[in-house]
Amino acid sequence: MSRGEMTENVAYKRASSEGDEKVDWKKIKAERKESKKRIKESKLIQQLEKQQQQQEEEADKAKRTDLQQTKGRQYTVTVALPGSVMDNAQSTELRTYLAGQIARACGVFCIDEIVVFDEHGEDVRSVEGEFTGVKKKGQACIQLARILQFLECPQYLRKSFFPKHQDLQYAGLLNPLDSPHHMRIDEESEYREGVVLDRPSRPGKGSFVNCGMWKEVQIDKQLQPGLRVTVHLNKNQNNESRIYKGVVVAPHVPRSQGGLYWGYSVRLASGLSTVFTECPYKEGYDLTIGTSEKGCNIDQASIKPFKHLLVVFGGLQGLEASVDADQNLDVTDPSLLFDLYLNTCPSQGSRTIRTEEAILISMAGLRQKISIAFAISS
Amino acid sequence: MSRGEMTENVAYKRASSEGDEKVDWKKIKAERKESKKRIKESKLIQQLEKQQQQQEEEADKAKRTDLQQTKGRQYTVTVALPGSVMDNAQSTELRTYLAGQIARACGVFCIDEIVVFDEHGEDVRSVEGEFTGVKKKGQACIQLARILQFLECPQYLRKSFFPKHQDLQYAGLLNPLDSPHHMRIDEESEYREGVVLDRPSRPGKGSFVNCGMWKEVQIDKQLQPGLRVTVHLNKNQNNESRIYKGVVVAPHVPRSQGGLYWGYSVRLASGLSTVFTECPYKEGYDLTIGTSEKGCNIDQASIKPFKHLLVVFGGLQGLEASVDADQNLDVTDPSLLFDLYLNTCPSQGSRTIRTEEAILISMAGLRQKISIAFAISS
Ligand SMILES: C[S@@+](CC[C@H](N)C(=O)[O-])C[C@H]1O[C@@H](n2cnc3c(N)ncnc32)[C@H](O)[C@@H]1O
Ligand SMILES: C[S@@+](CC[C@H](N)C(=O)[O-])C[C@H]1O[C@@H](n2cnc3c(N)ncnc32)[C@H](O)[C@@H]1O
Repeated sequence: MSRGEMTENVAYKRASSEGDEKVDWKKIKAERKESKKRIKESKLIQQLEKQQQQQEEEADKAKRTDLQQTKGRQYTVTVALPGSVMDNAQSTELRTYLAGQIARACGVFCIDEIVVFDEHGEDVRSVEGEFTGVKKKGQACIQLARILQFLECPQYLRKSFFPKHQDLQYAGLLNPLDSPHHMRIDEESEYREGVVLDRPSRPGKGSFVNCGMWKEVQIDKQLQPGLRVTVHLNKNQNNESRIYKGVVVAPHVPRSQGGLYWGYSVRLASGLSTVFTECPYKEGYDLTIGTSEKGCNIDQASIKPFKHLLVVFGGLQGLEASVDADQNLDVTDPSLLFDLYLNTCPSQGSRTIRTEEAILISMAGLRQKISIAFAISS
Repeated sequence: MSRGEMTENVAYKRASSEGDEKVDWKKIKAERKESKKRIKESKLIQQLEKQQQQQEEEADKAKRTDLQQTKGRQYTVTVALPGSVMDNAQSTELRTYLAGQIARACGVFCIDEIVVFDEHGEDVRSVEGEFTGVKKKGQACIQLARILQFLECPQYLRKSFFPKHQDLQYAGLLNPLDSPHHMRIDEESEYREGVVLDRPSRPGKGSFVNCGMWKEVQIDKQLQPGLRVTVHLNKNQNNESRIYKGVVVAPHVPRSQGGLYWGYSVRLASGLSTVFTECPYKEGYDLTIGTSEKGCNIDQASIKPFKHLLVVFGGLQGLEASVDADQNLDVTDPSLLFDLYLNTCPSQGSRTIRTEEAILISMAGLRQKISIAFAISS
């Protein structure tokens, strides 16, 4: 504004200072005309400057929201794989270890959702091999899902959510996920995962939550004891107080507003088709990638920005077997199900790449392409 | 040549056909001049065409050698890591399994040489933890090297080269490498790995070799029994004969001439410095890459064609610990040792990536860049 006003003042001054001379109507008329022209001009300039200023302000605002967006991450990545990979392990210890490898591969690449799908379709097939005690259909899926959830859960919350279970018998062998939301007791953080405590609080006051710190956190509302919550801790805490204060937020907030990797959710699917149809995001997956050594060379593929990416892996027999097992799918060629069907390891030196290896290899290849996609678009 | 000669004939014809008219010396002189000019021109054209032809021939030749080169692979890739990674495993079974993961990661990415270096330097430190029976210095290195060699060896040769050993106690848990040189008994192949048999052959004739086929192979020379050899099988075999015929070649031939991945060799190094100095290639490593989360973003790195690439990984404490332990190195910053020092997993979602994971992730990232480097240069 200030630049526009200044120009106007200068124009008026000029017009009035010329009025001190002898009256010469022709001259005066011409001067008036000139003056009017100047006023018009100055208004135009003023207008243009206003526009320019507006543009600058908008650019500034855009830059600021951009920064906020680079701070937050607006997209999600989902990995899906069949629970049958578990039956590929050679001992009960290694079965647990394999689940841990999958959890870690997903954690390292900031996966937001893992879908474990049943490859055995509707008919109850027994699980062959050594696992004679666990021949129930879907057992592999459930054990894999349970171990994935166990590893995702911050250590200080595990006793609340994971009672003793035979699926977790060898949990001691698992390598920790060590993701950012696995906070140490005196680590400072804007967000923390917690469990609502079964302790009465005064009416009108919020529940108490164990967030794995020395003090408990009182949140903004009353919630059911035993619930897992994501807490946004208040910026200014009263150090004298025996408790911290915080606000419960949706679990995606640390990612979408803080740009933090905040672990993954785990979903079970009855077959390959429900991996797609039971998507928890209301918009669905807007980019889907299937993986196979028979896919197209990843080096020639490029990725456009997306909201919700789904990357699907097959088991011992590849995605063909997953397609065959699903009665809801009438295709036989898995590539038809996906936007991209990629060979993520061209010229592989082994006849076959195991699913747990393929996750690390594929996500390493895709990470580069995703980061380029969002770098160009922003 | 033929195109050049044709042009010359045409030029001469034109000159002589004009000589049938009335004698007009001026005209004749002019015509002779013209004729000479044309001859000169035609010679020039001839010359130019010869040059063009030569160029075409050279391009053709280049293309042919290019094809030969795309068939063969002229470069090698070496991975080096400290044996201490083994002490990171939580049970003797998992220790074996870890070695298997490393073997498979290297196999999948067609690694030609694996160097296991001792991170404990000169002073004898005991290996802490459960492995009380194996406190000898370097035990981790030797066990890792042994399992790597065991997995690289085609199954049909293992009984010849790997007597029972406690390091291989859990070898049954290992996932096979399944690389191209692990041939099934009736698989046809230009090359095969074999062991020289302790069976007399007539003077002037070559030794017999077990190459894992129904018939034995008689090679072109007499060699010491028990030697592992790479055999190039003759194209035309006499199907009636009780033996096949073949020629012993250097182990690099299936790669350098056939373009096949032919497994890796294993080398022990007493420290990080001898990884470099005891390079088996007479030219040395001409491109060296160190890996660390503190390295430069791999997305911003590019790779030029090389002859012998070395990629080095650290153990639990990173390459800093390997540098510290080596008395031959007077640097403290590991990045100074390498042409490139790369973070191969920017924005990792876990506080730390394990060495066995880092090999898959890093080689997946480098594979793309290597293939681009050689695609552009050829
Ligand atoms: C053991 S492999 C399946 C091999 C199976 N014979 C096939 O033809 O697909 C298990 C899974 O790893 C992934 N995978 C293996 N090799 C791959 C490659 N080169 N590119 C992409 N994904 C691969 C795929 O998801 C595959 O379904
Ligand atoms: C457990 S990590 C070592 C971590 C150690 N704290 C450090 O600062 O390097 C073991 C090895 O994996 C590799 N590694 C881990 N993360 C990596 C990354 N982001 N980029 C490249 N290599 C990595 C490196 O070779 C490292 O020495």
